[in-house]
Amino acid sequence: MHNESTRAEILIEALPYIRQHRNRVVVIKYGGAAMKNSELMSAVLCDTFLLSLVGIKIVLVHGGGPEIDELAGKLELGKKKVGGFRYTTPEIMELVQMTLCGKINKNLVAGLTRLGGKAIGLSGIDGAILSAEELSADGTDYGGRVGNITDVNAELLQTSLDNGYIPVVSSVALGVDRECNYNVNADTAAARIAYALKAEKLILLTDVKGLLKNPADENTLISKVSLSEIPGLIKDGIISGGMIPKIDCAVEAVRRGVNEAVILDGRAAHSILIELLSDSGAGTMISR
Amino acid sequence: MHNESTRAEILIEALPYIRQHRNRVVVIKYGGAAMKNSELMSAVLCDTFLLSLVGIKIVLVHGGGPEIDELAGKLELGKKKVGGFRYTTPEIMELVQMTLCGKINKNLVAGLTRLGGKAIGLSGIDGAILSAEELSADGTDYGGRVGNITDVNAELLQTSLDNGYIPVVSSVALGVDRECNYNVNADTAAARIAYALKAEKLILLTDVKGLLKNPADENTLISKVSLSEIPGLIKDGIISGGMIPKIDCAVEAVRRGVNEAVILDGRAAHSILIELLSDSGAGTMISR
Amino acid sequence: MHNESTRAEILIEALPYIRQHRNRVVVIKYGGAAMKNSELMSAVLCDTFLLSLVGIKIVLVHGGGPEIDELAGKLELGKKKVGGFRYTTPEIMELVQMTLCGKINKNLVAGLTRLGGKAIGLSGIDGAILSAEELSADGTDYGGRVGNITDVNAELLQTSLDNGYIPVVSSVALGVDRECNYNVNADTAAARIAYALKAEKLILLTDVKGLLKNPADENTLISKVSLSEIPGLIKDGIISGGMIPKIDCAVEAVRRGVNEAVILDGRAAHSILIELLSDSGAGTMISR
Amino acid sequence: MHNESTRAEILIEALPYIRQHRNRVVVIKYGGAAMKNSELMSAVLCDTFLLSLVGIKIVLVHGGGPEIDELAGKLELGKKKVGGFRYTTPEIMELVQMTLCGKINKNLVAGLTRLGGKAIGLSGIDGAILSAEELSADGTDYGGRVGNITDVNAELLQTSLDNGYIPVVSSVALGVDRECNYNVNADTAAARIAYALKAEKLILLTDVKGLLKNPADENTLISKVSLSEIPGLIKDGIISGGMIPKIDCAVEAVRRGVNEAVILDGRAAHSILIELLSDSGAGTMISR
Amino acid sequence: MHNESTRAEILIEALPYIRQHRNRVVVIKYGGAAMKNSELMSAVLCDTFLLSLVGIKIVLVHGGGPEIDELAGKLELGKKKVGGFRYTTPEIMELVQMTLCGKINKNLVAGLTRLGGKAIGLSGIDGAILSAEELSADGTDYGGRVGNITDVNAELLQTSLDNGYIPVVSSVALGVDRECNYNVNADTAAARIAYALKAEKLILLTDVKGLLKNPADENTLISKVSLSEIPGLIKDGIISGGMIPKIDCAVEAVRRGVNEAVILDGRAAHSILIELLSDSGAGTMISR
Amino acid sequence: MHNESTRAEILIEALPYIRQHRNRVVVIKYGGAAMKNSELMSAVLCDTFLLSLVGIKIVLVHGGGPEIDELAGKLELGKKKVGGFRYTTPEIMELVQMTLCGKINKNLVAGLTRLGGKAIGLSGIDGAILSAEELSADGTDYGGRVGNITDVNAELLQTSLDNGYIPVVSSVALGVDRECNYNVNADTAAARIAYALKAEKLILLTDVKGLLKNPADENTLISKVSLSEIPGLIKDGIISGGMIPKIDCAVEAVRRGVNEAVILDGRAAHSILIELLSDSGAGTMISR
Repeated sequence: MHNESTRAEILIEALPYIRQHRNRVVVIKYGGAAMKNSELMSAVLCDTFLLSLVGIKIVLVHGGGPEIDELAGKLELGKKKVGGFRYTTPEIMELVQMTLCGKINKNLVAGLTRLGGKAIGLSGIDGAILSAEELSADGTDYGGRVGNITDVNAELLQTSLDNGYIPVVSSVALGVDRECNYNVNADTAAARIAYALKAEKLILLTDVKGLLKNPADENTLISKVSLSEIPGLIKDGIISGGMIPKIDCAVEAVRRGVNEAVILDGRAAHSILIELLSDSGAGTMISR
Repeated sequence: MHNESTRAEILIEALPYIRQHRNRVVVIKYGGAAMKNSELMSAVLCDTFLLSLVGIKIVLVHGGGPEIDELAGKLELGKKKVGGFRYTTPEIMELVQMTLCGKINKNLVAGLTRLGGKAIGLSGIDGAILSAEELSADGTDYGGRVGNITDVNAELLQTSLDNGYIPVVSSVALGVDRECNYNVNADTAAARIAYALKAEKLILLTDVKGLLKNPADENTLISKVSLSEIPGLIKDGIISGGMIPKIDCAVEAVRRGVNEAVILDGRAAHSILIELLSDSGAGTMISR
Repeated sequence: MHNESTRAEILIEALPYIRQHRNRVVVIKYGGAAMKNSELMSAVLCDTFLLSLVGIKIVLVHGGGPEIDELAGKLELGKKKVGGFRYTTPEIMELVQMTLCGKINKNLVAGLTRLGGKAIGLSGIDGAILSAEELSADGTDYGGRVGNITDVNAELLQTSLDNGYIPVVSSVALGVDRECNYNVNADTAAARIAYALKAEKLILLTDVKGLLKNPADENTLISKVSLSEIPGLIKDGIISGGMIPKIDCAVEAVRRGVNEAVILDGRAAHSILIELLSDSGAGTMISR
Repeated sequence: MHNESTRAEILIEALPYIRQHRNRVVVIKYGGAAMKNSELMSAVLCDTFLLSLVGIKIVLVHGGGPEIDELAGKLELGKKKVGGFRYTTPEIMELVQMTLCGKINKNLVAGLTRLGGKAIGLSGIDGAILSAEELSADGTDYGGRVGNITDVNAELLQTSLDNGYIPVVSSVALGVDRECNYNVNADTAAARIAYALKAEKLILLTDVKGLLKNPADENTLISKVSLSEIPGLIKDGIISGGMIPKIDCAVEAVRRGVNEAVILDGRAAHSILIELLSDSGAGTMISR
Repeated sequence: MHNESTRAEILIEALPYIRQHRNRVVVIKYGGAAMKNSELMSAVLCDTFLLSLVGIKIVLVHGGGPEIDELAGKLELGKKKVGGFRYTTPEIMELVQMTLCGKINKNLVAGLTRLGGKAIGLSGIDGAILSAEELSADGTDYGGRVGNITDVNAELLQTSLDNGYIPVVSSVALGVDRECNYNVNADTAAARIAYALKAEKLILLTDVKGLLKNPADENTLISKVSLSEIPGLIKDGIISGGMIPKIDCAVEAVRRGVNEAVILDGRAAHSILIELLSDSGAGTMISR
Repeated sequence: MHNESTRAEILIEALPYIRQHRNRVVVIKYGGAAMKNSELMSAVLCDTFLLSLVGIKIVLVHGGGPEIDELAGKLELGKKKVGGFRYTTPEIMELVQMTLCGKINKNLVAGLTRLGGKAIGLSGIDGAILSAEELSADGTDYGGRVGNITDVNAELLQTSLDNGYIPVVSSVALGVDRECNYNVNADTAAARIAYALKAEKLILLTDVKGLLKNPADENTLISKVSLSEIPGLIKDGIISGGMIPKIDCAVEAVRRGVNEAVILDGRAAHSILIELLSDSGAGTMISR
């Protein structure tokens, strides 16, 4: 049992945050380690459920690369990557859609429901949440079913949140240039949804501690970064590689009105709870 | 162009039905021929969209046997049937869930959306719409993942309808006796949903014209049957074979408060529209 | 019984119009042949009732020349016309008011009520819907009780429509320049009410097929006319005589925000239904 | 200018009554002397307007014998009475309807509107307020168009009151046994409307001071009478002649839930105001 | 008993004012003679209660000098005045707060409640209605607890009025420059509250008849004064002495949007009732 | 800084309680040590503010013996006690009212407001929250102004809570047997208010740890007691002396529908927060 003054201090610190976030929207891109390890998955679902319990409106957006790879492997359809995107033919798109919308999405919804939550599993197709057209960059061939998000219709998400549901959204979009569905990047989908919903916060769960001054030393975490500091950090190589598109998503979200975007460590249990309900927070926060 | 008096007559006949059904719920079990033939599928989606356009609240409930078979075939998992149910092991359940919730469901939603409708793809897991426990009948082995529906929570469906969405529901349920999802019968799911929603009508799309006095002669269609006549029809063999469980669903729905249940021919284009908006209707109607 | 595909086609054509017009206001000036022939009158009331049944908000505005003439005849008060207007002395005004508000109006309301409609009989006096001052054009003597509408207060009509009633309005107005009531032109009253209500459509029932390129040939109907084409049509004599003030009303309504005004043939049964619920419509439509 | 303490006393007396009657319904049967004398008519309209101004919901119900007689005279249609009722043939009914609904009703509405009121002129036909069937008593011939009220639908009156309108209602009803309109007794109509609206008070304006102990002496007014005292007063001849049906209306109204019915002197200006806003009231009040 | 025509005349005059003031806010600064004499106090409470009864939203703001003096006397704390303000040390402030908020305020609330009213006793501290900082004028020493109002938060007053309560407010404010409460001028508090509430009227009860042309002659009352006339009246000495700060409050209120401010004689019983519900009013009205 | 897993554990424990108590009413009787020590007073106000911040509806009810004694001393009015009650003459009642309603109440409100809360200071007189008559027990003389609560009107408290205010209530009541105010017991007032508000919890802050099996040993705290156990505890002397009337209040509250009553140690800082937001709670809980 915890010491009473410790308990009082932690609660006194947390209660004003609960009030501040109540009825506000927080969009969480869920993926990486936190999706592979079942204990971490439980902690993410637990945090999501508890935060929704006190009135914070959480939206979970997810992808699911490894599980798609697994099914593609069984069906011998390969797992080629082109410029950071999965090479997606119509056949592979069918697998993507089945895995994301049929397997992962419904299993997350089942998990939240078992905890006592009211959850609803959606994709970018439902309520036309995400519209997309074929991604085409300088004639690169992505297989025909990688999409570029052109529009977000947040109505269904808003209705779901207003009625007390936790929406869980698969990163699949409705084609507007052709009668098909598209595979879209989950980070981008989360960022686009965040600003369509005028979210207070966008949290991108990753497999790193956040931005580090010295990438080799996790004790050099940068807690806060403003938009104007980003170009310098890229130039200095502190933001590099796969972190660049993530930071781009975060920057775009903040630029379009989301209060803060946070690069958060998905490998630490309950990092979401601590980020939202303590003075120190966790990970790296990007804001104006 | 149609003759003006024909037009006036048909409209004068239809308008009072539109008024009568407006804001009422009609649950349609969609499957069979109407799902396999792309032209018939278009007609079902068209009817659904147009009826929702004038304020009739349609819920589409679907299964999808043939497509599950196809994927199971590719993965060499077999398609055994036991006592009318698909033999469903945990591995097969994953395929069922992916095919129904990930492929068919989202494709139906995409089709309705392209027509201009507001659609939402759900399963029995979302919002805990369908709870189930393992089906066990006299020790029969169904593979462990065939479920028996124990409870229906219509809140999410009601919310969706109230906000103008057409819910499309996959026949998959949340396990309450074990942490798993279950494969449930789509006719039963449709009937249970119909009475939980206090629906005005349950429509079961089938591959026959309806009940026939002489099964060999489609001109002997029985248009209306009351609950009390059913036992006689079974005894006389007019209701037999695969029709028996369908009729059981219909009877149970009517007994629990659904106004009418209709066995409707899914092989005739726009039979739904004609059933709902004309004096003569179509198929066989079961009522108190 | 109609062929099923004919039925489906007509309904598929009509349903989107029902949706489009639902909760929109359509003002119909009712008069002429459709008022004299009892079968046509039944068709107008039937159309009005059915359209209101599916949520289209109809306002019927009526005059009633022949019946006023009849009563004036019995009371030996004459039926002089001046410049297209009935010469209306205070004595004649009493007859006008009694005939329009007491006889025709209440009989139309009774007819709609017998069909199952919720109707309410009003005049321009009720709720101060129509304010008028004495018409004075170059010293012409109209008898003192012909009014020029100066103001429209749509509040009572809006309240009636919002509560599901079909308002039937007599073309009599409240004097603002003197303590008396005035006889006003019913076409003008309908047009003024249409734009005060921000109606979607103004329908003027007449005893012709619409505008005809060749007045002698009903097959030369002009289906659509834009505002800019009107002056040319007047110059060419295609719009002439009694049609000119009607077209003026239509033009003014469209200019002030009514979507479309339609010159519709009151001699054809159910022309209102066909105009509102088919692609081809009926009569001549005037729009921007 | 009035003395300040007199003013204060009268206001202190009146304000609690305004509060008590606010948002309550008072049905006034208007007729007799108060309708014939233009100064008294002005006082009735003034009282009605002022009381509605402070939130008391007034409904005026009127007949109009003398004016019908006048028109019938001009058209040589006679003015026969049978058993207290006007002998009403279909031809005479047309005059009744025109006079009540077209002339008197609209003139009262115009009068209230000129004072600044929001008034609406209705009849028993509008919104099916009054349904009736032919009066038949022991084979007496009333001409075929005297009606017996069978049902009251107060919805339109309630809607009108809720939207701040003063309804003025002509005593004409919709036939339910035949496709015609009926002439009904205005006192009865007022009483029926009063209890359908759960009115607080029914006021019957008459040409007497109220019930008098000594009919020859107006100083012997009986201020209050309970239901149980009525039979004795009839037996004693204090209630007799034309007063009997009036008292019957009052009794029936009180029995069915109206708080009080008042026989009020229509010959005294502003008797309505004094009845409603002073301790002493006016006329004879009938209550449980 | 009053003559019926007198009664009718007074009511006909009053009813439109009741309508005009209904749901409008009237702020009354209560003090002086009307607080010391128990009969006058009863009349003020009676008027307040009756006016609230018919829907006029009254706010009573009060000070209470004599009673503070009395308690200060008993505790030997003196009653020094500096520049028109009570010299208020922290010790004296405690007495001020106890006397105003604890004694006078609750006794007024008790009085209104006994009449049948719904009253609520507040101070400037509750709901942070009045914020203040220490008054400092050229280094004058007011004892440290005389406050200058810096802000008004009308939310709690608005909520109280919307829920049908009569707020009674003590002129004590919450310190924003220091953790203490302040003694503030009641006239100023009333004026500031009046414009924060967008009141229709501010009534300052005083111990004079109003502004007098000849101060020695009460028959020379000035009934109406516009803002532009004020400077002249000050120059002419008609407004002088203690009347100047009162007029300043009134002028400031009118300038900031209050319709009228009235200097009213608190020595005449029911002057509030007569001011609000008669054509002639009472006292001196200041308006734009 | 606290350890992250400690923080997570404490929050995971607290969040479901926040949800459970949200929009529920908790009535706290505030007094004793927690009122005398300024640090403890700050902790009580802090807890009250933070809990209201997350949507828990707190009502503070207070007495204030020591401060009344102090003023009574200065004015030489004595501080006699009779049977556990302050001997209260009309003169002393004035001091009670001034001290409770004017001094303590407003200072608590000021404190909550400075923290950022929306608070409102009330007494039993406001909105007629507490009605009382003179306490008379076997002819004992309590000085004439000790009251026995006869009725509670929770409307004003409910309205205040619904509008987001924290009501702070002085234990003074409105006399119904005489035109005076009464001094009432604060524990009783809190209990009566708790059940009138259908509160979830009644917390009585005291100067002991709770009920102790061995009164000499604070480690023998009894955490939970059911109603049926109380008589035994009294018999065994575990409940005795001044604790008996407190327990009586608690029992009565629980019997009338309050979920739980808690005897809580006011000497421990933040005991309220810990009681409401941890599994173990604090003090002794009495429930059915």
